[in-house]
Amino acid sequence: MTSACRKIAAPNLAEPPNATWSNGLVIGNEVVLSGMTARGGDGRAMGGASVEGQMLAVLDKIQGLVEAAGGGAHNIYKLVVYVTDIGRKDEVNAARAAFFRPHYPCSTLVEVSGLVFPDLLVEVDAFANLAADLRA
Amino acid sequence: MTSACRKIAAPNLAEPPNATWSNGLVIGNEVVLSGMTARGGDGRAMGGASVEGQMLAVLDKIQGLVEAAGGGAHNIYKLVVYVTDIGRKDEVNAARAAFFRPHYPCSTLVEVSGLVFPDLLVEVDAFANLAADLRA
Amino acid sequence: MTSACRKIAAPNLAEPPNATWSNGLVIGNEVVLSGMTARGGDGRAMGGASVEGQMLAVLDKIQGLVEAAGGGAHNIYKLVVYVTDIGRKDEVNAARAAFFRPHYPCSTLVEVSGLVFPDLLVEVDAFANLAADLRA
Repeated sequence: MTSACRKIAAPNLAEPPNATWSNGLVIGNEVVLSGMTARGGDGRAMGGASVEGQMLAVLDKIQGLVEAAGGGAHNIYKLVVYVTDIGRKDEVNAARAAFFRPHYPCSTLVEVSGLVFPDLLVEVDAFANLAADLRA
Repeated sequence: MTSACRKIAAPNLAEPPNATWSNGLVIGNEVVLSGMTARGGDGRAMGGASVEGQMLAVLDKIQGLVEAAGGGAHNIYKLVVYVTDIGRKDEVNAARAAFFRPHYPCSTLVEVSGLVFPDLLVEVDAFANLAADLRA
Repeated sequence: MTSACRKIAAPNLAEPPNATWSNGLVIGNEVVLSGMTARGGDGRAMGGASVEGQMLAVLDKIQGLVEAAGGGAHNIYKLVVYVTDIGRKDEVNAARAAFFRPHYPCSTLVEVSGLVFPDLLVEVDAFANLAADLRA
């Protein structure tokens, strides 16, 4: 009765050698992910000072992990979006529209007082299930 | 092996035409919801400046969505409650007691620095499962 | 088709008589928990002013609840870590390493503006599944 539980390794999203977390796990059909940010391999935020740009970079990372699990963007059924400035929520909307239209996952959006690095403007916790298809 | 994935439409909780999220989805037995606030159809916060009042309005919305999925309040097994003033946590307790007593879901409570509109005092991320009955 | 839904009672983690939440529930194989803090039975934070110390106390509580559900630390597949000072994230890493090495759950980390009591430095929302084994 034990579900397979395996780590996801996305080609362009290495975990640092001293990471104390897993980027992604697959448990049964559920794709479990860590909160993702736009931090790139060089330590700089992809998307620069744009919330929309950072969020699109984050969604690309998330898509890469879900694909590494054998699925695709259409399996993403929920986001929890943490921003550092809720006044820029229109940029969150723009990124969600660009990435998901017309099949939108559920989404929660709150402003937090800080993310793991000062240049990060948004972090996204995503939930996906390989047996769910939002296009259906 | 694809789980049914369908959108929930609650009669009194329309998504705005330009919404970049889904209010609710059902995946298998799991009812997946977006974070809900007390914002009413007229753009004003139901419950006014009362955390308890807003939270009861939010829980009513959530119940409506779970009912639209074919369940009820007894299927709600977890809340994540985001408030803008943790000093008013007694009002959160009062609302949970009024709504759920005596069968309480799990609940997480944190203070965030902002919600999507300035008059909102609380947002609730709720989790429900049609096959789980907290009264059992 | 109703999944068993039962409350978890950990011997050393009583719910206060007026609690408006459940510490833990088991729904099928899923262990559902409330956000946990280092607050002890005497009302003081275990681990004092150390983020690492508080987080280890929190992880001990979580382990106790998962064990009360019939599982163990190896069933914990995700954490959402809320800290009040993101500048102390190295202490979060240290606690995760001490507790989980070498099998790490996914983990999300954000800074919030407040937790339920002023001496609390960290709250952890943990997710576990009795059918998932991160050692596998």
